[in-house]
Amino acid sequence: MLLTPDAAGVFPIAPTPFLEDGRIDEASIDRLCAAYHGCGSTGLTVLGIMGEAPKLEAAESLAVAARFIAGMGDLPVVVGVSAPGFAAMRALARAATEKGAAGVMIAPQPHLRTDDEITAYFRQAVEAVGPDIPFVLQDYPLTLTVRMTPGVIRRIVEENASCVMLKHEDWPGLEKISALRAFQNEGSLRPLSILTGNGALFLDFEMERGADGAMTGYAFPEMLVDVVRLQKDGRRAEAHDLFDAHLPLVRYEQQQGVGLAVRKYVLKARGLISSDAQRKPGAGLSAAGRAEVDFLLARLARFDARAEGLGRL
Amino acid sequence: MLLTPDAAGVFPIAPTPFLEDGRIDEASIDRLCAAYHGCGSTGLTVLGIMGEAPKLEAAESLAVAARFIAGMGDLPVVVGVSAPGFAAMRALARAATEKGAAGVMIAPQPHLRTDDEITAYFRQAVEAVGPDIPFVLQDYPLTLTVRMTPGVIRRIVEENASCVMLKHEDWPGLEKISALRAFQNEGSLRPLSILTGNGALFLDFEMERGADGAMTGYAFPEMLVDVVRLQKDGRRAEAHDLFDAHLPLVRYEQQQGVGLAVRKYVLKARGLISSDAQRKPGAGLSAAGRAEVDFLLARLARFDARAEGLGRL
Amino acid sequence: MLLTPDAAGVFPIAPTPFLEDGRIDEASIDRLCAAYHGCGSTGLTVLGIMGEAPKLEAAESLAVAARFIAGMGDLPVVVGVSAPGFAAMRALARAATEKGAAGVMIAPQPHLRTDDEITAYFRQAVEAVGPDIPFVLQDYPLTLTVRMTPGVIRRIVEENASCVMLKHEDWPGLEKISALRAFQNEGSLRPLSILTGNGALFLDFEMERGADGAMTGYAFPEMLVDVVRLQKDGRRAEAHDLFDAHLPLVRYEQQQGVGLAVRKYVLKARGLISSDAQRKPGAGLSAAGRAEVDFLLARLARFDARAEGLGRL
Amino acid sequence: MLLTPDAAGVFPIAPTPFLEDGRIDEASIDRLCAAYHGCGSTGLTVLGIMGEAPKLEAAESLAVAARFIAGMGDLPVVVGVSAPGFAAMRALARAATEKGAAGVMIAPQPHLRTDDEITAYFRQAVEAVGPDIPFVLQDYPLTLTVRMTPGVIRRIVEENASCVMLKHEDWPGLEKISALRAFQNEGSLRPLSILTGNGALFLDFEMERGADGAMTGYAFPEMLVDVVRLQKDGRRAEAHDLFDAHLPLVRYEQQQGVGLAVRKYVLKARGLISSDAQRKPGAGLSAAGRAEVDFLLARLARFDARAEGLGRL
Repeated sequence: MLLTPDAAGVFPIAPTPFLEDGRIDEASIDRLCAAYHGCGSTGLTVLGIMGEAPKLEAAESLAVAARFIAGMGDLPVVVGVSAPGFAAMRALARAATEKGAAGVMIAPQPHLRTDDEITAYFRQAVEAVGPDIPFVLQDYPLTLTVRMTPGVIRRIVEENASCVMLKHEDWPGLEKISALRAFQNEGSLRPLSILTGNGALFLDFEMERGADGAMTGYAFPEMLVDVVRLQKDGRRAEAHDLFDAHLPLVRYEQQQGVGLAVRKYVLKARGLISSDAQRKPGAGLSAAGRAEVDFLLARLARFDARAEGLGRL
Repeated sequence: MLLTPDAAGVFPIAPTPFLEDGRIDEASIDRLCAAYHGCGSTGLTVLGIMGEAPKLEAAESLAVAARFIAGMGDLPVVVGVSAPGFAAMRALARAATEKGAAGVMIAPQPHLRTDDEITAYFRQAVEAVGPDIPFVLQDYPLTLTVRMTPGVIRRIVEENASCVMLKHEDWPGLEKISALRAFQNEGSLRPLSILTGNGALFLDFEMERGADGAMTGYAFPEMLVDVVRLQKDGRRAEAHDLFDAHLPLVRYEQQQGVGLAVRKYVLKARGLISSDAQRKPGAGLSAAGRAEVDFLLARLARFDARAEGLGRL
Repeated sequence: MLLTPDAAGVFPIAPTPFLEDGRIDEASIDRLCAAYHGCGSTGLTVLGIMGEAPKLEAAESLAVAARFIAGMGDLPVVVGVSAPGFAAMRALARAATEKGAAGVMIAPQPHLRTDDEITAYFRQAVEAVGPDIPFVLQDYPLTLTVRMTPGVIRRIVEENASCVMLKHEDWPGLEKISALRAFQNEGSLRPLSILTGNGALFLDFEMERGADGAMTGYAFPEMLVDVVRLQKDGRRAEAHDLFDAHLPLVRYEQQQGVGLAVRKYVLKARGLISSDAQRKPGAGLSAAGRAEVDFLLARLARFDARAEGLGRL
Repeated sequence: MLLTPDAAGVFPIAPTPFLEDGRIDEASIDRLCAAYHGCGSTGLTVLGIMGEAPKLEAAESLAVAARFIAGMGDLPVVVGVSAPGFAAMRALARAATEKGAAGVMIAPQPHLRTDDEITAYFRQAVEAVGPDIPFVLQDYPLTLTVRMTPGVIRRIVEENASCVMLKHEDWPGLEKISALRAFQNEGSLRPLSILTGNGALFLDFEMERGADGAMTGYAFPEMLVDVVRLQKDGRRAEAHDLFDAHLPLVRYEQQQGVGLAVRKYVLKARGLISSDAQRKPGAGLSAAGRAEVDFLLARLARFDARAEGLGRL
């Protein structure tokens, strides 16, 4: 059951839940899986940037991935394997696939600059993990500082048959989706799933530009599922109404660095994880920040019942 | 009538309007001034990053500044004088002040890294422009790549008596406002006006954290004026309601690179500038992008009459 | 007498000499010109990065360029016109050409990343300065952070007929020269002059890889002239012997930031400029640094009489 | 036998030798150890940037470190433990120390910018590895893009008792050594060993500025040992004569990216490793590059018998 270019819908980015003492919180992994399942997700992604992947030891990474894979049952799980070196990338990719991962996600290393450096990197990455493991290409310039044009993405897709999905989180990125879909319309790019990230800040329009769904970790994956579905059903106004109701919180959660603290804080408030602890280095929320999130949750509850009881005006 | 640390309210960031052939559009400058005046602005900032300052020749820069200064009458105008070298910075700062500028705005050069490099830069900048010209310190890491801690900002303020205002546009930046205000509460930082930028994406909470107002170029400065006033009057819910109605467009306009095209497109739709032309290099809006902005304007009009008739669902 | 792809030999990079009070030192410009002429230079480049170009006002830049042009008589002078915006670039390029410049030098702006961004930039730059002015493409990733592959350089050359020369200062860069010459051998790149920079740190081998000469500001341009000539005459061992004798000082002068202070210190010791003052911001030499340069000069004098009397062991 | 601030002399940076098929070459590790021992090294550093550390799996890293530790007998071995996350850093640091490492080396992560970010990072790193393991602070801005002032280095040293050594490879860096020694003279910085890196490009003067020795991987560690000894004995002219004879090759080996290929090529020519293979991504030497190194070795042999028979004019 490997990942294919047909993948669509919502693959939430799972956080890695920790206990207050920093150990992996396995019970919360199970609770998260139940929630992701229950809200209509079509898959899951673990060990991404927001999954605090670099803070785990190798054995822990594999254990976390395995537990999420088990928890998601027959839904496909993508495992982030980005690493400074190919040996570690290969080791995790092969081991996770043995545990049942549907594919892996690979981000370019931050030092890459020219088109040729970037495409060479992905050829070598595929050689390292093996061409039999489907991979998701992560395009996240804001954090990774690597800029890939639509043409470069096309080269990577064409050069590597195992590239089946783009995690699109360029910013601004709407034109990039249109450009890639135009490549496909003109026949110069083979089928490719495009799921969008960036905390869902542009999900409303990304769907209209041709995205297949979302892959991001916003603390209300239900909203992502609904917006994706409404847009696919052509119920545009409803999609925007729901999206706009969440936008103040989406925007707040999408702050660089602080975002994960917000996300874990809300997930804890929702009872999905038992602690919002992060491993170091990790920015926590100040009292003022917590009050702001509470305020946003209370305002959200006026429009979306799923936020009821979580916040405080 | 020089700028002081008491400055508050809204200083819109003015775009530089061009005719289709690239020449300065003086009539539009006058229309913009009338609009800024009419909506309750307390000042204006010209030749900022969004004012396409580096695309002007020296003589043009001065002419644009002078026309805005004349147009704003007795309201203070801040002139952006950031430049790769101090000679050009000094020349524009002195000339603009002679034309009636209330102060200048200085951003750090992108190569600056350490705390000492940054503070040395501002000492030298003040030496160049002269200590008699009040200046606004621009803190915009997302674009400039220079990161200033609250402690570094305090050092700059303390070392340079002519620093009277912070243009705050760090992201995330709410804690930075709180930290600076805490410095002042404990007596370690003298009075300093803080106006916030970043396209107003966090203006709702920035006011609650202690900002004195906004300095940004969102195409509805009326909204900025209203939110600042409502928050100062303690009408928090109303402030957030209005802000949230604008947030979908605020978010859309705040895209890096594309943002100015959106802004000029809306200002043109509002009749405030005659063309949305940018000088090269400048990213225009695609047909899809224009339709998205039209859609956002139409949705906005349901809540804010000032957007009526501008868009199309 | 415009610059052509046949240009070869040594184009020293001239410093901009200042008096102690920061004014332009015109007499030193004249002395420098006489020295460059006298040592066998085939051209000159002014207002480069090491010419403190961003520290000059527009009028000063033109005046400095004009004086150097006059001083060099019938030898071609290239004027650096790199600027954050095209308006300033165009203004200086047109004015300098009117004063007799043989061509201009353009470096990419530091924010450029992808191949397409870089090539688009040069198309727009040529549109700005005009296709009638020959230009030198500056490839200096260490300082500018822009990385151009041989393929990108070829695209720029092929897209812009007015590109007649590459100022090559990538590091490492030997393979790049070989790649470009291979393009020409296979017929995929038209003739292009390649002069090398980087403080001459690899001039010995750059000539063997196919460079046409040097364009850099080492304080003994005579050495550059001799090494270029010896290599062209096939006197390889002599070329390396001379080069190696200078290498300890070349290496010392090629330090980022400090390098210009070393260069001006030696030029002053040689009587070619009256002061080693730099405009701010500019790193001076410490007493220890000056003693180290003196020591290197004294050691150099054992091999090269042109350094006699300048240093102190 | 843990590392102390008294450490001095030469700690070569060991490459990680691979067989042609990419496996670790243990026999070459033993040969390298014998050579390092035989030439007067006072210690060794493994798994640095030039040790291709990120290309190893966790178990391999430990195995490589352990074999070098065993091979060096009673000489102290420093193990590079830099990693994107603290969990991996801690794991390797603790395990290597159990195997007999004398200390670890930690480089700042590339995203760190402000003084406070940098110092916080090292406090957290020490918390992770434990305060009982001495560590070497690596200051290598050219590759890591993190700039630490002398004041920041002092803060790190003062805040972390386990910081016993600076691997100094700023460029330019001579004034930094002087500044740190001046701190110690005035009593504001406790004793700290300073060994210099950067391929030894400035070792001649670094010793005169107060360095305790060298920690770099130049393919002739004998030269490093001799220059350090000669400078300590006050035989300055001899030190520079020997250094200058090696400088053409030192400079060639110090090219970013290509440098390791040069180093491994020479080490193989010297019979110290059986293959110059690198794991991917790794830049190899072209035929022209190999010929240039051969040429430099032949020229070196005229002055230093230890290079005899290795090259070819």
